[in-house]
Amino acid sequence: MRKLIAFNNVTLDGYFTGADGDFRWAHDDSDDPEFSAFVAENARGGGELLFGRITYELMAAYWPTEMAMKNDPVVAERMNKMPKIVFSRTLGEASWSNSRLMNGDLASEVRRIKNASGEGIAILGSGSIVAQLAPHGLIDEYQLVLNPVILGGGRTMFEGLNNRPKLKLTQSRSFNNGKIFLRYAPAS
Amino acid sequence: MRKLIAFNNVTLDGYFTGADGDFRWAHDDSDDPEFSAFVAENARGGGELLFGRITYELMAAYWPTEMAMKNDPVVAERMNKMPKIVFSRTLGEASWSNSRLMNGDLASEVRRIKNASGEGIAILGSGSIVAQLAPHGLIDEYQLVLNPVILGGGRTMFEGLNNRPKLKLTQSRSFNNGKIFLRYAPAS
Repeated sequence: MRKLIAFNNVTLDGYFTGADGDFRWAHDDSDDPEFSAFVAENARGGGELLFGRITYELMAAYWPTEMAMKNDPVVAERMNKMPKIVFSRTLGEASWSNSRLMNGDLASEVRRIKNASGEGIAILGSGSIVAQLAPHGLIDEYQLVLNPVILGGGRTMFEGLNNRPKLKLTQSRSFNNGKIFLRYAPAS
Repeated sequence: MRKLIAFNNVTLDGYFTGADGDFRWAHDDSDDPEFSAFVAENARGGGELLFGRITYELMAAYWPTEMAMKNDPVVAERMNKMPKIVFSRTLGEASWSNSRLMNGDLASEVRRIKNASGEGIAILGSGSIVAQLAPHGLIDEYQLVLNPVILGGGRTMFEGLNNRPKLKLTQSRSFNNGKIFLRYAPAS
């Protein structure tokens, strides 16, 4: 069974993007070599990315740009190369490199994908996807990078999730740039 | 000058109360003696509490009750005894023990209070108060207890804050119950 991780950069007020869709505050790590090494190490991992439409469109509009290649070359190259799935019933086509569009029943499709052989799968952002999958017990781990940033408004993770999953903290690691990496598993 | 701290229990999705005003998830610490000792130590400190109306009314409806005295006796006794200020232009009276109601200009009043001699002041919850004071540079420290809880909806801290204060992480301490205590100072 493939492991499904939900990964999010979040602010102190719980947002993973600003109201304007801005998520670049999360990639300001140039001041901390230890954190940069951590990100590069993470980016080296294999696997597949899973998105909802909104996060997909935000990221597809950023990572292929020259700005992204300049600001964050390791992550940008990896993001563009990795295989990506976007779940949407309204998106016409998935034009970001190495993407495929799926529009079936989300939980059934994800269960099928997890049951196939292969490397891990990571959901980035995509609050509504996380909120739909968590009640089915399909998310094996939550990974958060908590940023020392306050946005004052934006989109929260887990939007509309209403079963309040019980979690246990399995790792915390703080960096000199003020970011903290946190891992949580569903409490069994 | 008295130090002004903004203290919040928060969930992984950035809420300090649920949509229904529930904040009792934050006080489920009976399973961790180290965390209970930390809370009791915190509660021993002197000082004064500062609230906006909404958080004040939520807390005034809970801490004086027998349920609070039973579930969380150390904190309940301290909450009821400590001097409290509530800022509101609509509240008729502040009837929770040891409260006083203020309805002047928030930033001016807080500046005046800070300039007087006395012990520290802590804002609990009260997102709109925090959001109004932060741009004036009146908040000296942010203390968060990050809980391993997802609410899926509720009220976020710092609501409407739009100057994105720069912060630096000054302490992180994780507990066996999965809570993490975090301290941030405004970056100078």
